[in-house]
Amino acid sequence: MTTEKLDINSALNWRYAAKRMTGAVVPQDVMGRILEAARLAPSGIGLQPYEILMITNAELKKQILPIAANQMQVVESSHLLVFAPWDDYTPERINGVFDYLNQQREKVSTTLDRQRQFALNYFSKFSSEENFHHAAKQAHIALGIAVAAAALERVDATPMEGFNAQELDRFLDLKSKGLRSSMLMAIGYRDEANDWNFKLPKVRKPMSELVTLYQ
Amino acid sequence: MTTEKLDINSALNWRYAAKRMTGAVVPQDVMGRILEAARLAPSGIGLQPYEILMITNAELKKQILPIAANQMQVVESSHLLVFAPWDDYTPERINGVFDYLNQQREKVSTTLDRQRQFALNYFSKFSSEENFHHAAKQAHIALGIAVAAAALERVDATPMEGFNAQELDRFLDLKSKGLRSSMLMAIGYRDEANDWNFKLPKVRKPMSELVTLYQ
Ligand SMILES: Cc1cc2nc3c(=O)[nH]c(=O)nc-3n(C[C@H](O)[C@H](O)[C@H](O)COP(=O)(O)O)c2cc1C
Ligand SMILES: Cc1cc2nc3c(=O)[nH]c(=O)nc-3n(C[C@H](O)[C@H](O)[C@H](O)COP(=O)(O)O)c2cc1C
Repeated sequence: MTTEKLDINSALNWRYAAKRMTGAVVPQDVMGRILEAARLAPSGIGLQPYEILMITNAELKKQILPIAANQMQVVESSHLLVFAPWDDYTPERINGVFDYLNQQREKVSTTLDRQRQFALNYFSKFSSEENFHHAAKQAHIALGIAVAAAALERVDATPMEGFNAQELDRFLDLKSKGLRSSMLMAIGYRDEANDWNFKLPKVRKPMSELVTLYQ
Repeated sequence: MTTEKLDINSALNWRYAAKRMTGAVVPQDVMGRILEAARLAPSGIGLQPYEILMITNAELKKQILPIAANQMQVVESSHLLVFAPWDDYTPERINGVFDYLNQQREKVSTTLDRQRQFALNYFSKFSSEENFHHAAKQAHIALGIAVAAAALERVDATPMEGFNAQELDRFLDLKSKGLRSSMLMAIGYRDEANDWNFKLPKVRKPMSELVTLYQ
């Protein structure tokens, strides 16, 4: 690989939200690296309060298509990811994370126990809906990192909010897992010939409107 | 640079949430690339509904320190970023984005006008608070990408929610700009000797608990 290919800004300029994909399959090792990047994403207090459903089954994708406003990248993707944050932060879940952390680090650290107490206390103050929003924000960090990782692999990854979340939750029975869908991500390869969006130049607001320096 | 250095998963394993930094300054070209990655982040309907305040002024950082639970990375950072989503989606803001887009693409596209109408309609249905949550989620995507970009540069970037957002908003007069703070990010260089967090092994939940395959 050339250095250019590994430069994140070249990659982010290369990527765009592909509306049509070819259906070609993303190799397993490549998918593995993209998912590993998402796994390594930081999250508030390290809770990683989300799961990812990865759908390659063609029949399932077909059934999701009308739930996702008939957006063709759903069925033309190689892998359709469903980002599914926790529907709530519960003591069981929080304790589960910290028990695992202590076990991995082979000791009960007092610092960790301070964080555990902080987390238990913090999230007990909010409604389930507010906690879901918080968890969804963490999932958006992982999604951002997955978009970057895919672009570096020159794999297309279209983030999608244009779907009926309640219907998708029912269809995938997410409630029984204590999850709710927040985002889809269609992963695959752009269909340059048929995608109107491919030809459009990338537009972002200028840096001067994004960043203000306090020197 | 070696390929290893440019691999995103090596970079994400290298990074961690630095709690102590040395105060050394991140060169301007490096900062420029990190901010450019954030600028290129995707966002819902391309609205980029956030700004970033970048604070290098030592006096300002000192005043923010108590607002951010006295977390030392605030004053030991090179650049302290404040992610500040729009406090609401308004017709003016949405029209501003689409007017700019049409101008950049040198024509009024009907597809774009469909998206404009969709956006105007969509966000008019929600409360300011819900719209702020939505905008904050977009900012989290940009934050995730900035974390990845910084790691690829081997620059530390600690995402921070441990601050009093209302106080910070007042202190930076964000209301007058129609913004609210959602996240801080301390950018700089880890202080390996003094950071207890540096020595701890990275822990993430196993892939099997993150991803479920529907084949
Ligand atoms: C939304 C969010 C809020 C965070 N708030 C803080 C914070 O206030 N102070 C801090 O030192 N780290 C903060 N972190 C860092 C996390 O604690 C850290 O990313 C997580 O525990 C995983 O550890 P690692 O990033 O070191 O691998 C935050 C991270 C996120 C994503
Ligand atoms: C939260 C979110 C939701 C999105 N929803 C959709 C969607 O439902 N369908 C789609 O084709 N693109 C969707 N996108 C892609 C954006 O429209 C696109 O990223 C943005 O317009 C910038 O264009 P670019 O990514 O092509 O550079 C979404 C992006 C984000 C971040």
